Amino acid sequence: MAGNSFGQAFRITTAGESHGPGNVVIVDGVPAGIPLTVDDLLIDLNRRRPGQSHITTQRDEADLPEILAGVFEGQTTGTSIAILIRNTDQRSKDYGNIQDVYRPGHADFTLDAKYGFRDYRGGGRSSARETTARVAAGAIAKKLLAHALGAQVIGYVHQVGSIVAEVPHPESVTLQQVEYLADGTPNIIRCPDEATGSRMIALIEEVRKQQDSIGGAATIVATGIPAGLGEPVFDKLKADLAKALFSLPAVLGVEYGIGFGCATMRGSANNDYFVPKDSFDASTSAIPAIDNITTQTNRHGGMLGGISSGQAIILRAAVKPTSSLPLEQPTVTRAGEATTIRTKGRHDPCLLPRFIPMAEAMVAIVLADHWLRWCGQKNWKSAT
Amino acid sequence: MAGNSFGQAFRITTAGESHGPGNVVIVDGVPAGIPLTVDDLLIDLNRRRPGQSHITTQRDEADLPEILAGVFEGQTTGTSIAILIRNTDQRSKDYGNIQDVYRPGHADFTLDAKYGFRDYRGGGRSSARETTARVAAGAIAKKLLAHALGAQVIGYVHQVGSIVAEVPHPESVTLQQVEYLADGTPNIIRCPDEATGSRMIALIEEVRKQQDSIGGAATIVATGIPAGLGEPVFDKLKADLAKALFSLPAVLGVEYGIGFGCATMRGSANNDYFVPKDSFDASTSAIPAIDNITTQTNRHGGMLGGISSGQAIILRAAVKPTSSLPLEQPTVTRAGEATTIRTKGRHDPCLLPRFIPMAEAMVAIVLADHWLRWCGQKNWKSAT
Amino acid sequence: MAGNSFGQAFRITTAGESHGPGNVVIVDGVPAGIPLTVDDLLIDLNRRRPGQSHITTQRDEADLPEILAGVFEGQTTGTSIAILIRNTDQRSKDYGNIQDVYRPGHADFTLDAKYGFRDYRGGGRSSARETTARVAAGAIAKKLLAHALGAQVIGYVHQVGSIVAEVPHPESVTLQQVEYLADGTPNIIRCPDEATGSRMIALIEEVRKQQDSIGGAATIVATGIPAGLGEPVFDKLKADLAKALFSLPAVLGVEYGIGFGCATMRGSANNDYFVPKDSFDASTSAIPAIDNITTQTNRHGGMLGGISSGQAIILRAAVKPTSSLPLEQPTVTRAGEATTIRTKGRHDPCLLPRFIPMAEAMVAIVLADHWLRWCGQKNWKSAT
Amino acid sequence: MAGNSFGQAFRITTAGESHGPGNVVIVDGVPAGIPLTVDDLLIDLNRRRPGQSHITTQRDEADLPEILAGVFEGQTTGTSIAILIRNTDQRSKDYGNIQDVYRPGHADFTLDAKYGFRDYRGGGRSSARETTARVAAGAIAKKLLAHALGAQVIGYVHQVGSIVAEVPHPESVTLQQVEYLADGTPNIIRCPDEATGSRMIALIEEVRKQQDSIGGAATIVATGIPAGLGEPVFDKLKADLAKALFSLPAVLGVEYGIGFGCATMRGSANNDYFVPKDSFDASTSAIPAIDNITTQTNRHGGMLGGISSGQAIILRAAVKPTSSLPLEQPTVTRAGEATTIRTKGRHDPCLLPRFIPMAEAMVAIVLADHWLRWCGQKNWKSAT
Repeated sequence: MAGNSFGQAFRITTAGESHGPGNVVIVDGVPAGIPLTVDDLLIDLNRRRPGQSHITTQRDEADLPEILAGVFEGQTTGTSIAILIRNTDQRSKDYGNIQDVYRPGHADFTLDAKYGFRDYRGGGRSSARETTARVAAGAIAKKLLAHALGAQVIGYVHQVGSIVAEVPHPESVTLQQVEYLADGTPNIIRCPDEATGSRMIALIEEVRKQQDSIGGAATIVATGIPAGLGEPVFDKLKADLAKALFSLPAVLGVEYGIGFGCATMRGSANNDYFVPKDSFDASTSAIPAIDNITTQTNRHGGMLGGISSGQAIILRAAVKPTSSLPLEQPTVTRAGEATTIRTKGRHDPCLLPRFIPMAEAMVAIVLADHWLRWCGQKNWKSAT
Repeated sequence: MAGNSFGQAFRITTAGESHGPGNVVIVDGVPAGIPLTVDDLLIDLNRRRPGQSHITTQRDEADLPEILAGVFEGQTTGTSIAILIRNTDQRSKDYGNIQDVYRPGHADFTLDAKYGFRDYRGGGRSSARETTARVAAGAIAKKLLAHALGAQVIGYVHQVGSIVAEVPHPESVTLQQVEYLADGTPNIIRCPDEATGSRMIALIEEVRKQQDSIGGAATIVATGIPAGLGEPVFDKLKADLAKALFSLPAVLGVEYGIGFGCATMRGSANNDYFVPKDSFDASTSAIPAIDNITTQTNRHGGMLGGISSGQAIILRAAVKPTSSLPLEQPTVTRAGEATTIRTKGRHDPCLLPRFIPMAEAMVAIVLADHWLRWCGQKNWKSAT
Repeated sequence: MAGNSFGQAFRITTAGESHGPGNVVIVDGVPAGIPLTVDDLLIDLNRRRPGQSHITTQRDEADLPEILAGVFEGQTTGTSIAILIRNTDQRSKDYGNIQDVYRPGHADFTLDAKYGFRDYRGGGRSSARETTARVAAGAIAKKLLAHALGAQVIGYVHQVGSIVAEVPHPESVTLQQVEYLADGTPNIIRCPDEATGSRMIALIEEVRKQQDSIGGAATIVATGIPAGLGEPVFDKLKADLAKALFSLPAVLGVEYGIGFGCATMRGSANNDYFVPKDSFDASTSAIPAIDNITTQTNRHGGMLGGISSGQAIILRAAVKPTSSLPLEQPTVTRAGEATTIRTKGRHDPCLLPRFIPMAEAMVAIVLADHWLRWCGQKNWKSAT
Repeated sequence: MAGNSFGQAFRITTAGESHGPGNVVIVDGVPAGIPLTVDDLLIDLNRRRPGQSHITTQRDEADLPEILAGVFEGQTTGTSIAILIRNTDQRSKDYGNIQDVYRPGHADFTLDAKYGFRDYRGGGRSSARETTARVAAGAIAKKLLAHALGAQVIGYVHQVGSIVAEVPHPESVTLQQVEYLADGTPNIIRCPDEATGSRMIALIEEVRKQQDSIGGAATIVATGIPAGLGEPVFDKLKADLAKALFSLPAVLGVEYGIGFGCATMRGSANNDYFVPKDSFDASTSAIPAIDNITTQTNRHGGMLGGISSGQAIILRAAVKPTSSLPLEQPTVTRAGEATTIRTKGRHDPCLLPRFIPMAEAMVAIVLADHWLRWCGQKNWKSAT
C-alpha cells in the first residue's frame, strides 16, 4: 500500500534513503537453481554508480552489494533474496542548508505535504539513490531472462537536448556498443551513434559550465521475448512497462513503437501486416504455425493488444533536466518565506547516461515478472 | 495474476467479452454512505457508448447497467459493488469470417500465442467493449472524488491527425465545454476549441470516406486534488496514472506536464518555482504554511517526485488509428497462409471522441485509490 | 483492501448480499481450455442450497448460476470468469423487525461499528448467502484440480454436539458415501458413518423442536495432491487453508493432522518417519527418488513445514451453533435499549450438512491457487 | 507469490536463512512520526532469542538488530523500514551430516520436492530462525497499536503436555506476570499461573532428560482493540489472525473464544447477549449508543462475523513437540535408503516459552494492518 513493492511473480521490495545506512532490496519469486554471485550485480551497479565519468556527478560511491539471503553455494535457492548496498559517501552536512527549504523540481514539498514530516537528507527516500536497489534486482531479472530465454534488455541514450541519435536498427544495438566506443574506450554517453554521442557530450559539458542541466530521452530494447507475455486487460505488458519506467525519477513521458507519432497516422499506414517468417516452409513444416508467423514491420513496438508479439520490444522514455542546479534558484522556506537555493556541483548535468541501467533494470523486472506469470498459466498441465 | 484487477484501496475487478452475455465489474473499497444510482453510471456510459454520433461506430448498444450488489437504499454500503452491463447487439455472425484469420493491429495473434485458444468473437476479452466495466467503475470513483474533495476529472480531444487544438488553460476546461458547443448542440468531437474541433470532424469524415482511420491525442485534467497523493517509489502517482492510461486499448504514449518536451529543456528553464499563494498573508495567517505554498507555473503537470503538488494534474495520451478498416488489408490465417481481411464499416474511424470517458474513468480510479490510501496513512491517529 | 478477493494465481472476487439482486463471483487465473458448464457448478450449489432436506432451513432458493464471461464453446478461455446467482426468495419483510436490533451472535453490531451504516436485510454482506459465490468458484477449482492432477476434495460431518463419527480412514471416504446412504437414499447429514449419522439427525431434530441449535465439526480431506505445494514462510499451505476455513461464517477453530492433540504428544511419538514407498524397488527403478518416498503414518495431516508432503491433506473445522434462534433471546436496540428477538424458524438448526460444500470449495480454491503458483515456479524453464 | 510478504496496509517482507549472513525484514506502511529505536526491537528479540534459560535451546545468539532505513532522528519517516539481524552462531558443521537425509517432522523433504534444490543448513528458509524478522516487525506493530489505541498484545503458555494452566481472566494477564514471577525472578516458562508453571518446567526437564520433546498450547490476548476491525468476507479478522498463527512453525491448530468447544454447544447457551455498558446512562448521555454497547460474556473471543466487537480478542494455538530430537530416529536419505538421525541437543525440548513472542508479533501485525485499513475506510472524509 505504501508502494515499496513492485511486480507479482517476480516481486521486489525496497527500503533505503540517500543518507541512511544503506539500501536494501528483497527479491521474491526467483526460481531455484539460477547461478548468482555478487559479480553479476556489480556489472550494472557500476554502470549506475556516481563518479563514473566526467559528465556525471563527481560524488563517489563504491556501491558494493552484499547478498544477505536466498543464495547458497552460488545458486538461488527459490526463497527470497536480500541484497544490501551500504551508503558510504553520506556527507549529510551538504544537505543541512536545505532542511527548511523546498528545492524546486524536487519532492521536498510534496513529501512534506504527504507525511507532515521531512527527511531532508538529500531527498531521503525520494532520492535517485534508491535506484541502486532496483539495479541490483534488475541484474537478477536479466540473469533469469538470459537463462530461461536467451533474452536481453539493452538501453541507450537517444536524445540530449535537441541532439538526436540516428539508430536505424534499435533491435541490433549491443551492450558492447553502448558501453564502449569502436576504439575500445568507454562510451561515457551510452549512445551507439558515436558521432552524435560526441556532440551530446559537448552539449553536456557546455551546460555544466553554465551551471545548468539538460534533459533527454532514452531507448530501451528487449530482444528474445516470445509472443504471449502480458495480460489482456489491466496488466497489459505495455501498461506494466510504462508504470515501471514512470516509477523512475525524472521520467515525464513514455512511448513504445511509433509512440506519439501515431497521432498523425492513418490506420492503413500504421498497421503492421502479419506474414510467414522467412524460414517457414508451410509445405514441409510440421511445426505449429504460430511460431512461424511474424509481422513485416515493427511500428507496434513488439506489443499488440498489450501482449508481446515476438518482435523486439522498443520503448522510449523522456527524462527531464536535473532539478538540482549550481545556479541560484528562487524558492520558499517551509514557513512560506521567499529565499534562494543553489546546489554545490555534485549533481549530474544530464541524467541520461546513468539512467540507462536504471531503465534496463525496470524493463527486465517487468519482463521477468510476466515471463514467470505466463509460465504458471501455460505450463499448469505438464507440471508433475 | 491474470490482470483483471486494478487498484489497491479502490480496487476494480472485471470480466466480460465483446460478444458474451455481458461485462461485469466488482468495485471493492468504496466507503459506506456515498449516494449512488444507476443514473450516475449512465452519464459516462452514454458518453462512451457506440452509435452516439455520425463520427463514431454505428453499432448501437444501450449499455444499461444493473447494480447487483453493494448499494442499499441509494447509498453505498461499504461492501463490494457489482455492476452488470449486458451485451445486446452481439451479431456474432459479423465475426465468423475472422475465426481463422489474424486481424492486423489487433490482439488476435498475441492472444492465440498466449492461450493456445482463441475467442474469435470480435476480439473477445481484448475488445474495447471491456471498457464499459471501467467506465461504470470510473463513475463511482468520480462520485467519491467529488464527494470527498470537490475534485473533477475532465478529458478532451487535443489532436486528430495533424490538427491540434489550442487550449491555453487546460485546467479551466469544463464538462459543459467538452460535451456541448456554445450553441447548445452536442460537441461530438469533444474538443473545447470549437473551430479546431470542426476541422477535426471534417478530417474524420474524409478519412471514413477513404475507408481508413486516423489517430490522435487526448488531454486529461484533474483539478481539486490536494498535495500529497502518491507514493515515493514504485507507486508514484505518475506511474499509476501511466499504467492506467496505457492499459486502455490503442494507447501508444503517455506524458504529463511538458512531457517529451522536457528532453530539450534546461533545468533553469524547466523548474517551477515555489511561491506563497496569492491569498496568503504570512503576517496574519495561522494556517499551516504548507497549504499556502504553490508553484508559479505548472510545467510539472501537478506531480513532483511522483506525488501530487496541489496544482492541476495534466496528462496526455497518444491513441493510434483504429486497426479495423473497411479497406482490404493483407494478413495470414492461423495456418500461416496469406489472405486478406476487410471490416464491414461498423468501427470508429477515429477512437478519440469515445476515448475521452474511458481515459477520465481510469484517471479517476487512480486518484480515488491514492486518495483512500493517503487517508489511511494520514488519519491513523484520530480514527477512534 | 476491503477483503472481497481471495487467492493469488487462482483468485476469486465476490459481491452480493442476502437480499440484494444477487451474488457475483469473478474468478481470475483459470487456465484456458478447461471444460466448464453450468452443470458443473450446479452439483455443489445444490449441495449447499437451502431447503434440501428436513434438517436444513426450509427457505427455498433454486440458486441457478449464469456464466456471464470467460467461457466460450464449453471451455474456459483463460480470461476472467464471471458467475451470477440471483436471489429469488428475498422476502425482506422477514427482516424488517431487526432493522434497529442487534441479533446476538451475528455481525449486526460489529458491521454497524465498522461502517456506521447498516444493511439490515438478513445480515447483508455478512450473511452466509455470500457463500453461493464461493461454492460456484470452488466448483471451478475442483474441476481444475481433477483435470490437472486427478485430485479430489471431499468433506464430511465429523461431529454434531457430543456425537462423534468413527471414520478410521478419512482419506478413503468417497463423495458417494457422503451424499448417499448404502441403500441409495440421500445421506442428508453427510456423515459417512451411517449409524452415527442417524444419531446426529435425531439430535438435530430434537434441538429443533426445542427451538434451539447445535454446533459440530467437519473433516475435509484432499487426496491426489503432490508433494511441494505451499510456500516456506507466510503462505504456508496450512496457513492459507486455515484462513480459507476461518473466512467461512461460524468457524471457531481449525486444526490439521493430530491438531490440538499435539499438545500432549512427545516428539518421539509424534514424528512420522520417512520410508520408501511400497512400490519402490531401488535396485531397478530409474524414477527419481523423491517420488518414491512417503511417510509411514500421517499424523502430520499431509503438510510438513507448511508444504504438502504427498500424503492426504486432512483438516478439521469447528462450527458454532446457529446464532439465529426461534427461541426468544435478550438483546439491545441501536439506541442501547433492552429488547428481545426471536427468529421465525427458517434457519438451520445445525449448520454442518450445508457447511460441507462450502468448506470443500474453500479448500479446493486454496489448492488450485497453490498448484498454479507451484507450476509457475517449477516450470519456468521448459515453457517455450 | 512466493509468500515472503504478509499484510496489506501494514506489510512485512522477509528474507533470511538459519545459516546465511542474516535475516532481513522490510516493513511497509508504518505511518510517519512514531518513535522507534533499536531498544524497542530488542525487548521482544530478547524474549525470542535462543539460550535465554535452561529450558530452551542452548544455542546462543545475540540477535542484535540494525535499522537500515525508514527511521530518522528517532522517528519513523512514513517510508519503508528495513531491519537486519545478522546470524552470529552459524556453526554450519553441525548440519553437515543432514545434507542428504530428510529429518522427520521437518520440511527437508517437502522443500526438496518443491525446489528440486536443498539448502540443508539447518532447515534453511524453513528454520524458525526466520521468525527473528517477524518479531522485529511485530515490535513495530505493537508500538503503533500502543501509540494509536493504547492497545496491547500479550501471550502466555496455556498448556505443556497434559498440564493446563488455570487463568480465569486471560484479558487481565500482564506482561509483568508473563515475564516475572511474584518474587521478581524471570518466569522462564511464561505461564502466569505460577504453580502450574513450575510443574510445566519440571515436565520439560524430564522430557529433555529422556532426549525427547513435548507439545503444548499458547493463549494470545489483545486488549484495547475497538469494535469494527476486520472485513466481512475473506479478510475476516479471525481469518487473518488464523493465517498469521498457522504461518508460524509447528502450529497444528488455532481457535478463538470457546473454539472447538463450540461443537457441543447449543445456540441458546453459546450466544453472548448485547447489553449497555455499566457506565452508560441513556437518560443523560449524548454519546452515540454504539460506543456504549457490549456483550455480557465473551465466548465469542472478541470477534463477531469476523469483525472485532470491542471485547478482548482471545486466541489459542496448539504447538507440536520439537521434531529435532537427541534420540535416534529412523528416516531415509535423498536416494531413498533407510538410515537414522539424531540431533545433538541444541534444540528446545518444548517450543512454547519462545513461541510466545512470535505469536504476539504475528497477532500484533494483523491488528496493526486491520487498524490502518479501517482508518482508511473510516476517515476518508475528514482527511483534508
